[in-house]
Amino acid sequence: MNSCCSGLFVSIFLSLMSATQVQALGSKQWNGEGTSLNLESIVTGRCYDYIQTVNPTVRNKNCSAIWEALKQAFVYKDPCSVLPSDYELLINLTLHEIPPNKSLFWENNKHLVHKYANKGLHYMPLGDSLTGWIVDNLNWCGKPNGSGIDYISCPTTEECEHNPVESFWRIASVTYAKQSSGVIHTMLNGSALGGAFPNNSFFADYELPNFQKDCVSHFEIWVMDDIEGADLDSCGRGSIKVLEDILSSKGPVRILQCVDFPSHPECAIPSDSSIIKPWMTLFLPLLITINHGQMCFG
Amino acid sequence: MNSCCSGLFVSIFLSLMSATQVQALGSKQWNGEGTSLNLESIVTGRCYDYIQTVNPTVRNKNCSAIWEALKQAFVYKDPCSVLPSDYELLINLTLHEIPPNKSLFWENNKHLVHKYANKGLHYMPLGDSLTGWIVDNLNWCGKPNGSGIDYISCPTTEECEHNPVESFWRIASVTYAKQSSGVIHTMLNGSALGGAFPNNSFFADYELPNFQKDCVSHFEIWVMDDIEGADLDSCGRGSIKVLEDILSSKGPVRILQCVDFPSHPECAIPSDSSIIKPWMTLFLPLLITINHGQMCFG
Repeated sequence: MNSCCSGLFVSIFLSLMSATQVQALGSKQWNGEGTSLNLESIVTGRCYDYIQTVNPTVRNKNCSAIWEALKQAFVYKDPCSVLPSDYELLINLTLHEIPPNKSLFWENNKHLVHKYANKGLHYMPLGDSLTGWIVDNLNWCGKPNGSGIDYISCPTTEECEHNPVESFWRIASVTYAKQSSGVIHTMLNGSALGGAFPNNSFFADYELPNFQKDCVSHFEIWVMDDIEGADLDSCGRGSIKVLEDILSSKGPVRILQCVDFPSHPECAIPSDSSIIKPWMTLFLPLLITINHGQMCFG
Repeated sequence: MNSCCSGLFVSIFLSLMSATQVQALGSKQWNGEGTSLNLESIVTGRCYDYIQTVNPTVRNKNCSAIWEALKQAFVYKDPCSVLPSDYELLINLTLHEIPPNKSLFWENNKHLVHKYANKGLHYMPLGDSLTGWIVDNLNWCGKPNGSGIDYISCPTTEECEHNPVESFWRIASVTYAKQSSGVIHTMLNGSALGGAFPNNSFFADYELPNFQKDCVSHFEIWVMDDIEGADLDSCGRGSIKVLEDILSSKGPVRILQCVDFPSHPECAIPSDSSIIKPWMTLFLPLLITINHGQMCFG
């Protein structure tokens, strides 16, 4: 064997070793995406950004303590054994007032909701509060060894319910619903295949049961259909009927308005203009008033 | 003097000393706001956030090197002696392709532009490219001593032209204009008091002179009036006429369309709906085609 071939073998051997090592060190254990790279930088940066440029009405937050609270909830832990209660400190550290009448709940139309909410200027959905802002669209989970953070894969909720991301959004959603007061706005998707108000959704399971009846003046529900999407759910039918029944069971309900605009009047802009966008969509406001009693502003 | 009074005097003396010290350490030298607190965390966090969640088509950027490049441009420097060329390394490190037909220029309507651009999904204004994203809405300047960063105050452009923020946006705007290709979209404000196309604006001074004639297929200019705002500028009159003349001087110009919608047709949504927002504004597209020659995609 000449030195060239021997070099080649050594090189193949090293390649094989390094592939095996990589496999051992970083095998994909779960089906979900791994922890977002540079999680600490992103979370800490978003936190400072939020209190300084996005929503300066929120002050006196300790962004490094907030990162530590997130870290202690999942790092070096079994990623199937993280409970919502593990985030209690994080929730307490990030908590701030959700202004009355500014809460915006949603299901199946996150993109539209955040465009409409406009970083908390018009409404403040959970993802535009500090609690949701710092981790929105991020992923994270732990592992018992190594760095304590799994950057390769994380469990999906199908694999195990008590995974770090699912548990975080559960306690965050419950807390957000409990804080909400005045008019509660909800944006549902009338074209969603599972129904505008699907079973086992965050809205159905963690938000709706946690509204503080004495603090809510009424619910305002928009069922948005995708442009050229099917109009599967509407007032008084499909899963919206189920939602109406649930709200009825919570107190006196009066349907104030139920208007449909099938001809897209808000799209009456010349069709050659590129200003028409999917969010300018057919909408169907359904206004339900419950509980004319006490208001809880602030 | 009893011990109580002597304690009071010592206390007043200490208070005075500390007030003087604070004055010496942190006197407000300039009229502009000081450096944004936690600048490093925000810039680094935004950088990682951009390449991982906002625009993952941009890869292989070294966010810590990007921060170092920003730092070396202004830290420990006289805040009136920072030149656009001091940011050359930063610009090179953050540079990525601006997709053809996606450039969006603006003057006096930043808020509307960024809502419409939607984080680079529809268009990519400078503030939605990595270069602009990492420092948008932030402030920074140096000082020769102490930490080298002035958190108390920074010079405005009226105080000195070559301040760190002004110089950054100048070189960033020039580079962005040079990179832009295909259809060039520009959103101007027809209700602005200085005119939709004001003198000494970034668009007039740093962007318009730097378009690469051979790379631009045509200009598409929207003159947006504020809702209930004055319609001061329009096609063929006011400062828009000046812009038309400048574009004409750059090559063959053809006005394709000049439509005005004074009756706000896109606002024809029931007035009790809170869905009507200021950005759904009277618009006036003015389409000018120059140079039917070479296209520069990519």
